[in-house]
Amino acid sequence: MTTEQVKEKKHNLIASDRIEGTPVRRASGDKIGKIERLMLDKVSGNVAYAILSFGGFLGIGNKHLPVPWARLTYNKPMEAYEIDLSDEELRQAPAYEADEDFDWGDRSREVDLHAYYKSPAYWGY
Amino acid sequence: MTTEQVKEKKHNLIASDRIEGTPVRRASGDKIGKIERLMLDKVSGNVAYAILSFGGFLGIGNKHLPVPWARLTYNKPMEAYEIDLSDEELRQAPAYEADEDFDWGDRSREVDLHAYYKSPAYWGY
Repeated sequence: MTTEQVKEKKHNLIASDRIEGTPVRRASGDKIGKIERLMLDKVSGNVAYAILSFGGFLGIGNKHLPVPWARLTYNKPMEAYEIDLSDEELRQAPAYEADEDFDWGDRSREVDLHAYYKSPAYWGY
Repeated sequence: MTTEQVKEKKHNLIASDRIEGTPVRRASGDKIGKIERLMLDKVSGNVAYAILSFGGFLGIGNKHLPVPWARLTYNKPMEAYEIDLSDEELRQAPAYEADEDFDWGDRSREVDLHAYYKSPAYWGY
């Protein structure tokens, strides 16, 4: 690929500290919450999860929801990450209290998480 | 893979807001700088660059260096990201002023960056 050709490609990069705080919406535009932070796989350098937080939405209050990163898509016109989860799916999703830590050391919890979101495992089999 | 097997795997996740500020060192332990932020590819969700900053080290001052993420490895005992770049390599590396923005829209600059670090392009050909 020549330099001319690559120049035509669009700029697709976003800073990690700009992702933190980005709203999360449904395709309809409804705001669900925001991205609190990302969880990265130290070895591969890939993003594994977005941690979503909620401002009391649905009474979820201070819960944090780890969502497989692959389930979120960036919607440029909305300037938000998009995920289609119903209120009920959000209420039942694996979550932890904001002032506690998810037990990332227990991969069986990550297996359950990926099963819940029907998302392929980022760590590969 | 069974749940039992995956349980034995080690916890390998790190929060994006913990990576920001993590020291960057040479294999020798010399501190070069720190990670200011990460730049992610919005579409793939992969980390493309770490932006390194320097506290006046080598007279680089307020310059920011975008380094292909694949060139950094996490060194657990050091609790730092590791990269082996000499003083001279750091001085000559593509950089921009901390209060300015790198022109990410110009992919030919990214091509140059990857050539400098001899790193395969994250966007694929």
